[in-house]
Amino acid sequence: MGRVTARRRASHLTATADGTSAVDRPETLVVEEPLEIRVNGAAITVTMRTPGSDVELAQGFLLTEGVIGTRDDVLTVRYCRGADDGVNSYNVLDVTLAPGVAMPDVDIRRNFYTTSSCGICGKASLEAVATITRYGPGDDPTMVAAEALTAMPQQLRTAQKVFAATGGLHAAALFSADGSLLVVREDIGRHNAVDKVIGWALEQSRIPLGGTVLLVSGRASFELTQKAVMAGIPVLAAVSAPSSLSVDLATQSGLTLVAFLRGDSMNVYSRPDRIKR
Amino acid sequence: MGRVTARRRASHLTATADGTSAVDRPETLVVEEPLEIRVNGAAITVTMRTPGSDVELAQGFLLTEGVIGTRDDVLTVRYCRGADDGVNSYNVLDVTLAPGVAMPDVDIRRNFYTTSSCGICGKASLEAVATITRYGPGDDPTMVAAEALTAMPQQLRTAQKVFAATGGLHAAALFSADGSLLVVREDIGRHNAVDKVIGWALEQSRIPLGGTVLLVSGRASFELTQKAVMAGIPVLAAVSAPSSLSVDLATQSGLTLVAFLRGDSMNVYSRPDRIKR
Repeated sequence: MGRVTARRRASHLTATADGTSAVDRPETLVVEEPLEIRVNGAAITVTMRTPGSDVELAQGFLLTEGVIGTRDDVLTVRYCRGADDGVNSYNVLDVTLAPGVAMPDVDIRRNFYTTSSCGICGKASLEAVATITRYGPGDDPTMVAAEALTAMPQQLRTAQKVFAATGGLHAAALFSADGSLLVVREDIGRHNAVDKVIGWALEQSRIPLGGTVLLVSGRASFELTQKAVMAGIPVLAAVSAPSSLSVDLATQSGLTLVAFLRGDSMNVYSRPDRIKR
Repeated sequence: MGRVTARRRASHLTATADGTSAVDRPETLVVEEPLEIRVNGAAITVTMRTPGSDVELAQGFLLTEGVIGTRDDVLTVRYCRGADDGVNSYNVLDVTLAPGVAMPDVDIRRNFYTTSSCGICGKASLEAVATITRYGPGDDPTMVAAEALTAMPQQLRTAQKVFAATGGLHAAALFSADGSLLVVREDIGRHNAVDKVIGWALEQSRIPLGGTVLLVSGRASFELTQKAVMAGIPVLAAVSAPSSLSVDLATQSGLTLVAFLRGDSMNVYSRPDRIKR
């Protein structure tokens, strides 16, 4: 699996009433490395990620931040050499935008949350998403069977290759509305796994992602919900809990938000009309 | 618990062979809101966090980014009103530094990972930490009993008040070397929970945090390991997996990194000499 996993030695200790035993052994770990994303040569952000699918990651990030909207907005994506010694670390990606596509503000993350006039609050964050969304899922007529949803976490686990070896990865997966798995991506960062999935869809010219379900292996935060909305995904399903702001964003955007998707049950926090019973 | 939790209605669906049943009910969720951290009036970062212990969070963040080193480096920490309508959302905190304390670069996060001359790579990230660390734990003579470590996760769970209600929170806890719980903080963001703990210690004039163990409820990423190193904590213990870069940073810094701390066993990836057997 190349740079995705690495081996390090560890002491495995077991503490019992009779004392502590120790066994030294090699352990397989998930690799974490920084990735700098540049646009037209200017550094935009650095994310700590698991190497692999970097081109998808960069494009998914730029899509969910509102910088690009389709595959045609990108001319090229290339790894750059380091600033000084000219070595290519494969940790710097430069995205060249097509003519006419506006450069983002350099401090993209900060501006995203603070463009609203009311200062900074949850409501302002929701308004910022509403302002820049091109593909809001509100009108998407997709229907998904409850049994198709409850079958998805097991499909995700089966497809999660690296987690089994390392225990260290988040996963995101895209399903069609009938429950067929389209793509799975893993990363040490939850947001990176989702960006990789959405970047994959961009490369397949499948944006906006109408008629799909995005499944995440952890919680549904505001950030992940925002990414689903920006990609036009009608159903976001999380294995774990949602936050207040993710529910508010889903409600405002017309996204179906499913969480605590475990065993044969789930909670639906918004637009339950898309779930076939 | 005030703004820490919120109620939203949800449809609880159960899919069985006989069809899908639905029960509408209110659910308790963890609150997520943006927090803008300013230094001397200039915005430095925005983090999505669970409200509460915001003053600790801001100070812990600035300490682990190398902006401040002691409590005396901070004159005041105050909530600000919003930019336009003058309403205090309690989501903007301004930290006024003491005279002589240097302002950070505005784009603090980006600069942190990219100050090294070799461009951007894992090694550059390690060197950046080595450059700005004031309190490296390498020489800390702390010893911790293996049984004290294996008892910590249960103490953390017992103290985690909000998780039980919402299932949506990460936790970080500080213990003394004999296994006594000093403080627990929870947040929707793993890094925020750690910043709150370290900010608490700053307010108690306990920085550097020699003789302590930091326990985190999830994985040990580079970012969390960096925070432990920056605060001078000699032992970082994680319930789940570490990444390659967290192990490398711990090894380089002389931090004892424990992970997969579950039941009566654990893996020790660096400086196992601090664990009493």
